[in-house]
Amino acid sequence: MFSNGDVFVGEIIGTAILILFGAGVCAAVTLNHSKAKAAGWVVIAFGWGFGVMAGAYTAAPLSGGHLNPAVTLGVAIDTGDWDQVPLYILGQMIGAIVGATLCWAAYYAQFQANADKETALPTLGIFSTAPEVRNPVANMLTEIIATIGLVLPILAFGLTKGLGESGTTVLIVAFLVVGIGLSLGGPTGYAINPARDLGPRIAHAVLPIPNKGSSDWSYSWVPVAGPLIGGALSGVIFNLAF
Amino acid sequence: MFSNGDVFVGEIIGTAILILFGAGVCAAVTLNHSKAKAAGWVVIAFGWGFGVMAGAYTAAPLSGGHLNPAVTLGVAIDTGDWDQVPLYILGQMIGAIVGATLCWAAYYAQFQANADKETALPTLGIFSTAPEVRNPVANMLTEIIATIGLVLPILAFGLTKGLGESGTTVLIVAFLVVGIGLSLGGPTGYAINPARDLGPRIAHAVLPIPNKGSSDWSYSWVPVAGPLIGGALSGVIFNLAF
Amino acid sequence: MFSNGDVFVGEIIGTAILILFGAGVCAAVTLNHSKAKAAGWVVIAFGWGFGVMAGAYTAAPLSGGHLNPAVTLGVAIDTGDWDQVPLYILGQMIGAIVGATLCWAAYYAQFQANADKETALPTLGIFSTAPEVRNPVANMLTEIIATIGLVLPILAFGLTKGLGESGTTVLIVAFLVVGIGLSLGGPTGYAINPARDLGPRIAHAVLPIPNKGSSDWSYSWVPVAGPLIGGALSGVIFNLAF
Amino acid sequence: MFSNGDVFVGEIIGTAILILFGAGVCAAVTLNHSKAKAAGWVVIAFGWGFGVMAGAYTAAPLSGGHLNPAVTLGVAIDTGDWDQVPLYILGQMIGAIVGATLCWAAYYAQFQANADKETALPTLGIFSTAPEVRNPVANMLTEIIATIGLVLPILAFGLTKGLGESGTTVLIVAFLVVGIGLSLGGPTGYAINPARDLGPRIAHAVLPIPNKGSSDWSYSWVPVAGPLIGGALSGVIFNLAF
Repeated sequence: MFSNGDVFVGEIIGTAILILFGAGVCAAVTLNHSKAKAAGWVVIAFGWGFGVMAGAYTAAPLSGGHLNPAVTLGVAIDTGDWDQVPLYILGQMIGAIVGATLCWAAYYAQFQANADKETALPTLGIFSTAPEVRNPVANMLTEIIATIGLVLPILAFGLTKGLGESGTTVLIVAFLVVGIGLSLGGPTGYAINPARDLGPRIAHAVLPIPNKGSSDWSYSWVPVAGPLIGGALSGVIFNLAF
Repeated sequence: MFSNGDVFVGEIIGTAILILFGAGVCAAVTLNHSKAKAAGWVVIAFGWGFGVMAGAYTAAPLSGGHLNPAVTLGVAIDTGDWDQVPLYILGQMIGAIVGATLCWAAYYAQFQANADKETALPTLGIFSTAPEVRNPVANMLTEIIATIGLVLPILAFGLTKGLGESGTTVLIVAFLVVGIGLSLGGPTGYAINPARDLGPRIAHAVLPIPNKGSSDWSYSWVPVAGPLIGGALSGVIFNLAF
Repeated sequence: MFSNGDVFVGEIIGTAILILFGAGVCAAVTLNHSKAKAAGWVVIAFGWGFGVMAGAYTAAPLSGGHLNPAVTLGVAIDTGDWDQVPLYILGQMIGAIVGATLCWAAYYAQFQANADKETALPTLGIFSTAPEVRNPVANMLTEIIATIGLVLPILAFGLTKGLGESGTTVLIVAFLVVGIGLSLGGPTGYAINPARDLGPRIAHAVLPIPNKGSSDWSYSWVPVAGPLIGGALSGVIFNLAF
Repeated sequence: MFSNGDVFVGEIIGTAILILFGAGVCAAVTLNHSKAKAAGWVVIAFGWGFGVMAGAYTAAPLSGGHLNPAVTLGVAIDTGDWDQVPLYILGQMIGAIVGATLCWAAYYAQFQANADKETALPTLGIFSTAPEVRNPVANMLTEIIATIGLVLPILAFGLTKGLGESGTTVLIVAFLVVGIGLSLGGPTGYAINPARDLGPRIAHAVLPIPNKGSSDWSYSWVPVAGPLIGGALSGVIFNLAF
């Protein structure tokens, strides 16, 4: 349906925009010298949701705008078509790293101000998720359930008459992501997307941010494995129930 | 129109998603060790609204996505078709219990942390509603009025040209639920849905949550009876006025 | 286009829902023993906006859903058709009084708790608007400008291809009202609708609310005259520019 | 496509509405004697977003509703049609000055209250943007990236099937602007529009506001140049990638 080149370019651009907005809103509420400092959870949830909206609408004409390996996996299980899955995921990972780097550039002066040791803040939370209670089994369970809350509705949206014709599917997905953030983001920060977590974590490890703190690789597998399992389960449930 | 099997499966899945999001946002703002702790009323209202959106869009192709016995009752009075009413309500009740259990699983580490008696919080408010001023007549009146504010517009949406064709009816219902929460949730916490209140209350009574506190069965009939009366009145008003 | 009976019933029901939600959100953030106490300006703006959405979608099939004499006036100037103007305005006034009474019923226990003199709060702000700085000329100017910000876009929406066909016009109007609240509500509380202000003021004067305080009739003409002037100017500007 | 007269009038009216809402929300949260005083970042982001919605839907039938020289530039690079570019930009600048003046009129009593030296506040932030960390290179980079986050998606929206037909494109743009505010507004206050910044700055310099403070002309070139570069880059990226 989409050419390989379009899929690759679309997923890179779309995921870069998603992460630029998503990491951006975390920077906005976290860093010193930001007008949105400490602006609260509703800002984070809507910032990520509208980031999905911006990225997915931009990518949609080229690749359909998955921007998330868990979505790609759920769609592949639903359709049985696995040909472009590696290409989607590669584009998503590259886009996530690019987007995190753009966020760093947009907040360059704020990140540089972190050089002051007295006011320095840990910066990983801007890039990647971390659990409030570190318990791999519980954290994994949270990510699986939250990802089912994302991917199962997305698969069902394709069956809703009119959404595709009116061009509003992506808007609904955006509000769905806002809802997941508000409702299911409390325990782990809702990765629900392996590329969204791993790509920016790589960027965090590489970028020259003063006093940046640990990139916490020991937790990094949870927000990759959990969303992949959740996405796969969504495809299975969808095929059984619908 | 919808097969019995589809209605049953659709209402279970859709109501489970609704309650996962709705109880989830209450957990998010209530429990310790949650990133959204004390995030405020706007978070609760949008969390429930987008939960309706997620659940109803998912269930729509199978059952139309009622997810609420008060809606099912209003529709039956409007259409005069009562055949599938018990099946809808049974699916909604099962779905609500499943959704509350999924919320408990998603916030498992947070619920377990409630074992610490010094910081333990009452947990019923995550599952079911409770009035600020305990006055059954006034509480019932609030639930009746708020449910009319839900079901009468929903019945009227079916007459609005274009909403169905553009697939956006459920989105409008979601914002309607946000509005009811913001405007009419103050006195009783807006059950406006017997399954939304009774199902999670049953789950609360059964689940092994440390220091969970009372399931407050003495109040439980109000958020069942009030919304049913409100849904029935909506059907009657709709048939008279439209 | 719409029969006289439908216009009358539609405007009563729609305006009643609008005021139930709008006065409701003011009660929610104002009164003691409300879960949304002090929830902030964003709650008020979205509560009123979704009240417009709920009321106007409900009334749309019967009357087009004006719910506001300033809108009715702007439309009449645009179309030149004045036949049903008095009927619209009469329905809107009755609906506004009914809606304010329903809000009082929904928050009955909270209003009764105002009998305690030590914690009693002035209640007019739940029903009607009041300026922060009392200056009739400036207050009038604010209401005129804010009402142009409402009615001129509404008249232009009718020219936007697709909005009517997709049934989303009312949703856009709802967000427009949210925007006016956020942006232009600061000085006077944005009546922008004579029925929205005068109807509930009458209800406030009549209802048996303990310690209810003054109904402030000396200001009452500003939120009637200002919006009417703004609505008329919108019709004139629209006819000149479009 | 649009006549010169329609473009000129449309861009003036639309940009005036945009700035009335946008400057209005900044006045609402900044000035003393405003009901929305200190209402927070989410109010600002949604106020600007719904201002774009109000202005662009109003202007759309006359001019397509650019309201932003960066958008006009990106569209011209995409289409290769430069004939009406100066007319668009002239209309946008005039509209921005008119809108800022209307905001001053709507908040007249609040601005006059700034005459009290003890409580006087700097007022430029209501009209124009200012960086949290003054670093022209970093500030420029922020504005370039944020403007790409605006204009590239807008160009792509034109390729999304159904958005135009359902009339919802402007709504999506409005939420995109909310997202940019939430996510990328932290460092510089997101001008992302030369007219939005320069027009109100001229109004601020001219209007007789008590204790108004500096109009900060030394920074004024950044929010003009940055968005223009970002808009141009968006057009180039769009032509290469899509």
